[in-house]
Amino acid sequence: MIYIAVMGHGVVGSGVLEVFYKNHDSIIAKAGEYIDIKYVLDLRDFPGLDYSNKFIKSFEPIVDDPDVKIVVEVMGGLHPAYEYVRRCLLAGKSVVTSNKELVAEYGDELLDIALKNNLNFLFEASVGGGIPIIRPLSQCLSANNIIEVAGILNGTTNFILTKMIREGMGFEQALSLAQQLGYAERNPASDVEGLDACRKICILASLVYGRHVYPKDVHTEGIANVTLEDVRYAAAWGGVIKLIARVKKLEDGRLSAMVSPAFIHKESQLASVDDVFNGIMVRGDATGDVVFYGRGAGKLPTASAVIADVIDAVKHIKARKYLYWHKSEPGYVCDYREVPAVYFVRARVHDRQAAIRAAGRLFGKVRELLLPEGEVNETAFITPELPEGELERALGAFRALDFEVLSRIRVLDY
Amino acid sequence: MIYIAVMGHGVVGSGVLEVFYKNHDSIIAKAGEYIDIKYVLDLRDFPGLDYSNKFIKSFEPIVDDPDVKIVVEVMGGLHPAYEYVRRCLLAGKSVVTSNKELVAEYGDELLDIALKNNLNFLFEASVGGGIPIIRPLSQCLSANNIIEVAGILNGTTNFILTKMIREGMGFEQALSLAQQLGYAERNPASDVEGLDACRKICILASLVYGRHVYPKDVHTEGIANVTLEDVRYAAAWGGVIKLIARVKKLEDGRLSAMVSPAFIHKESQLASVDDVFNGIMVRGDATGDVVFYGRGAGKLPTASAVIADVIDAVKHIKARKYLYWHKSEPGYVCDYREVPAVYFVRARVHDRQAAIRAAGRLFGKVRELLLPEGEVNETAFITPELPEGELERALGAFRALDFEVLSRIRVLDY
Repeated sequence: MIYIAVMGHGVVGSGVLEVFYKNHDSIIAKAGEYIDIKYVLDLRDFPGLDYSNKFIKSFEPIVDDPDVKIVVEVMGGLHPAYEYVRRCLLAGKSVVTSNKELVAEYGDELLDIALKNNLNFLFEASVGGGIPIIRPLSQCLSANNIIEVAGILNGTTNFILTKMIREGMGFEQALSLAQQLGYAERNPASDVEGLDACRKICILASLVYGRHVYPKDVHTEGIANVTLEDVRYAAAWGGVIKLIARVKKLEDGRLSAMVSPAFIHKESQLASVDDVFNGIMVRGDATGDVVFYGRGAGKLPTASAVIADVIDAVKHIKARKYLYWHKSEPGYVCDYREVPAVYFVRARVHDRQAAIRAAGRLFGKVRELLLPEGEVNETAFITPELPEGELERALGAFRALDFEVLSRIRVLDY
Repeated sequence: MIYIAVMGHGVVGSGVLEVFYKNHDSIIAKAGEYIDIKYVLDLRDFPGLDYSNKFIKSFEPIVDDPDVKIVVEVMGGLHPAYEYVRRCLLAGKSVVTSNKELVAEYGDELLDIALKNNLNFLFEASVGGGIPIIRPLSQCLSANNIIEVAGILNGTTNFILTKMIREGMGFEQALSLAQQLGYAERNPASDVEGLDACRKICILASLVYGRHVYPKDVHTEGIANVTLEDVRYAAAWGGVIKLIARVKKLEDGRLSAMVSPAFIHKESQLASVDDVFNGIMVRGDATGDVVFYGRGAGKLPTASAVIADVIDAVKHIKARKYLYWHKSEPGYVCDYREVPAVYFVRARVHDRQAAIRAAGRLFGKVRELLLPEGEVNETAFITPELPEGELERALGAFRALDFEVLSRIRVLDY
């Protein structure tokens, strides 16, 4: 008999309770031990539920109760989630969380406390919702050297971009539709500005390469500046614009990591990841590309990932899952300006030929992009591959020649 | 220090040795223990390799050597693989295999011996090559009730169909190209006739639903009869033809399982799985659809899956991974004729209107399919959903009216 406590009864927390009791028999069978929920921590009242008697408003009974072996943290946010999780681990309880912000900021420290106390700190639900990715990355792909991980990790921005690409809807309109449908929050900044995707790629990068990658070290750009014109140029180029979070290891051992909108080829497996779905590509030296696809968020998918971790924690109640990464040194993630990139540039110009000639002088050999329907007073081109710092300098010089740059979007080769 | 033995030095076996020694340091780090290969069993000679001194031609030293804790079986085929694996397990050695035929035929028995001897019998590489699927299914999705599993599980047939769809190449020509490229064997029967896909869906079905599904109980059709005309009709319908292996649980607890070519919608995530790639869709009640995509075969992807299992076996040398299914009773997989299906039917006719009227009488409301370029002396239609037995009877009656049926392909709703 194992008791667990659930901290937080919002979207994910209520989903955890729902899936837990709905599939209780098969969960117990899979865990090999009877499991029940002893406490649900939430400041709000939830009368009339089958489990209303389990609610408490204070954290102390959970941390003080020796019967509680596993604590599920689904409150979200950094505080008090961090303090609570830390205290649970120090008190000898394994912790399962869906909180990507927490793992991205404090994963190294919390994993270390778990290791020292022979406990598990599990967070499958923090990336990719119901898509199994943490466990396959840490186990199944363990015989590979992983060259690169790239993914569409945020469903809200992917929904917005899909509406722009498929239906020619403008950004603002697509955002407000996403809000109406409950895919975007009233304050959509953490999705739209790429912060959510950034936290998730930090977790994947930390896991894959063994050292903590902090969100502050990952250059992050959102999708608010992507226009329908850009979408049309991407189609003319042969692809689509997606918000891509990516990390790879450089030859000198440092990492390159970034979140930004990018052109990707329409043949890419990531190009067909539409609507609120997520897709994660893992490029291994032995496996080649493996892609995981599914609903990256949502009550039940996320809850099912949380419960899978709970089952795993029960099965490993006295052992430890091998899930760990080290602290990292400053400079572990290199400045994005050092990393080679290719830009798509769109500018308002009066004299296209002059603009393309100037671009050729500043960037090297550029490739002009034309829309099938034609475009007046605009030019667009693809630069050669150069370190981003050089691309930025060339772009500055291009602007200084009085060409008004309307868009600058990276171009990826997958 | 853990010694392993590798039985078989063919494509997969040599890949196991290659990946093992190439990534030796990181494999040891991940396993947490020094691992080396003590024996490689093969009847052939392999002089001039770094590990040529490890070759033996007889199985006995492996089974008799108490130092060997883990045996990798990558010989393929049922015999003597089955006898060797069985004896290894009885001798207290965990076994890792890539042999889908072995697992599909004898999985229940071998898992049972492993359970009774507190050993691991692992086979991640048997399905989906380098795509992690066995472990995510058994662990990550454990909080779900899995409604259905459907996949493109055979790379050779998918390559052939892709050439037919994308390049209008005929079946025979595509097959011979696949043979030239080494994707198909000289005797391509087990791929082309669907047997390979059948073995893999048997393994997934056994794992997901907990009881062994034997290949003989799964109705299996290959792709040899798929024509370019069928491919064109599928496009007109709005999809593509893929060889789909699938299983789902019926309300009465029995399973429906089948391998056959099928029309799937072009928006399906499986529709974009092209060339030698595999894609596996898992439909859970909580997660929704999750899709795993990657190279389903090949030396290095398969070898990397084998080695991931070896690492896992080392980490669980005295514990057991929860991987088990029971024997099944006759009748566990229902006769495919009981299960509702939709057919695409194409027939040679002189009078189209008469044919469609006859089809309407026999099948119920049918939908005629027209090619954009038109087609003389042919008609094609989609039937309503009926139990396959009824569809077959109606098709027999349609034939009896002297309409020559050229094709009959199932139509799926994903």
